[in-house]
Amino acid sequence: MKTNEISRNFKNIQNKIIKAIKTLDSTIVKKLSTWKHKTGGGGISCEMQGSKYIDKAAVNFSSIVGDKLPPSALQKSGVRGLNKFRATGVSVIIHPSNPKTACAHMNIRFFEAKVNKKDVWWFGGGFDLTPYFINKSDIYYWKNSAKELCDKYKKGMYREYNENCNNYFFLPHRNEPRGIGGLFYDQMNSPDYRTCKEFSLDCAETFKNSYSYLFDLKKDKTYTKKEKSFQLYRRGRYVEFNLLYDRGTLFGLQSGGRAESILMSLPPEVTWNKKYDFTKYENNLMEMLSLARK
Amino acid sequence: MKTNEISRNFKNIQNKIIKAIKTLDSTIVKKLSTWKHKTGGGGISCEMQGSKYIDKAAVNFSSIVGDKLPPSALQKSGVRGLNKFRATGVSVIIHPSNPKTACAHMNIRFFEAKVNKKDVWWFGGGFDLTPYFINKSDIYYWKNSAKELCDKYKKGMYREYNENCNNYFFLPHRNEPRGIGGLFYDQMNSPDYRTCKEFSLDCAETFKNSYSYLFDLKKDKTYTKKEKSFQLYRRGRYVEFNLLYDRGTLFGLQSGGRAESILMSLPPEVTWNKKYDFTKYENNLMEMLSLARK
Repeated sequence: MKTNEISRNFKNIQNKIIKAIKTLDSTIVKKLSTWKHKTGGGGISCEMQGSKYIDKAAVNFSSIVGDKLPPSALQKSGVRGLNKFRATGVSVIIHPSNPKTACAHMNIRFFEAKVNKKDVWWFGGGFDLTPYFINKSDIYYWKNSAKELCDKYKKGMYREYNENCNNYFFLPHRNEPRGIGGLFYDQMNSPDYRTCKEFSLDCAETFKNSYSYLFDLKKDKTYTKKEKSFQLYRRGRYVEFNLLYDRGTLFGLQSGGRAESILMSLPPEVTWNKKYDFTKYENNLMEMLSLARK
Repeated sequence: MKTNEISRNFKNIQNKIIKAIKTLDSTIVKKLSTWKHKTGGGGISCEMQGSKYIDKAAVNFSSIVGDKLPPSALQKSGVRGLNKFRATGVSVIIHPSNPKTACAHMNIRFFEAKVNKKDVWWFGGGFDLTPYFINKSDIYYWKNSAKELCDKYKKGMYREYNENCNNYFFLPHRNEPRGIGGLFYDQMNSPDYRTCKEFSLDCAETFKNSYSYLFDLKKDKTYTKKEKSFQLYRRGRYVEFNLLYDRGTLFGLQSGGRAESILMSLPPEVTWNKKYDFTKYENNLMEMLSLARK
């Protein structure tokens, strides 16, 4: 079973990212909890709260044995008549306090199953950035680090995975991108297991480094009540996306995962009412989001 | 077209409920907006905010002409190969400020289409109550007024519609009911159009009266910061239900309805983190919710 090895690697990634988040905010308090999946395996969830720079972060690891693939996964995979599968993954979400720093998300996952005595496996994952206030240079920095990562592996990869990301992190009912994008890949199993594994671990590393860089750049910026309020309001879009469209969330809930862990990605505080006129902020943000898609 | 008559009735209901909400909180400021549906018809949304008793309320009317039934509706209706349909409805949501008063929801809707030259129509709707703190007598009052309404029409109706409501307003991923229930009916077209119409309008009237009664009973109760915080936390469940499961929300978004109006039901402020230990409040609430299902 490849899953055993990958699980160990992913647990390592979880610990590395927890450490990195502690470096971003030294006031971080973490709450670890473990859970068992009803048909085998389980997970370790780490919820973090800081009193200085980070409102909430979650770094979750899971490795489950399932007996029936939920609809949200079947829809895409094309795999039919499957009885038993293993899935392992790490997911990270960071909701910073300062509205000038961006919310970010990273996820890597591995899926393995025997279908008609054949071993079927694939990797998936990616990362993306959801800013409330951002400038051009930060956008270029973020996109460039994603491109550099891909270029190490294969030409054309960045273009494809970045486009996937743009298509995936989109809210049709708002006609809005969720953020400035990044990478998104699924069912990756070529050229070979080793390369796919390296790429996935590299994804996590790249995410950790480039997010930390941007975070440190902005974390001490001053901000107004109105700017904070805009952040709380825009976080509503994040909730809408996660509950209406996110396959990871739906997969987790439908496969009987632990709701507390799956929904740990939801922001700590959210508003759906506009306390101020945000027109200017919204226009600026939309301009940056569309620039990021070019 | 029956829809024309029903639309007029529903618009009346909208106005009556707006008035009733103003009576509940005299500080209410309302914001009306009209919108057009891309394939015909449109709606009038009324968003209300009070500074005393009501954080947010929305009373929305819509009457649309559609050319393709979205998946969320097809799933249930069994209607296939439909090209054109009309749908009209009123929906009400009230998020009070005082955690001792309950959040409430009411919706009535009418659907009409020609299928193979036959006129197909039905009514649907219902109401339910989502309290954060509630006692037995208030539960009995609420349930009893729903039962009295049903008993005017048909024996056994209450049992059926109340059970529908219990089944519908349930969060499987939390294994929790959303609230204490009420009524929920769908595809009602017997014994005849007139009776179904009367029943639906009566539903709205009953909701208005019994909610107003319970609201006035509790609106001046004192509450602590911790109790308020529990309300904001529990509102998260409301968001989860609406975005993950609610057919009305999904129907609206999938059929290209106006996101701002459809999502007007979302609470103004929500938290997903527990600022206090809510164990006692949660246990009490779960006890009341399960009592309400008996």
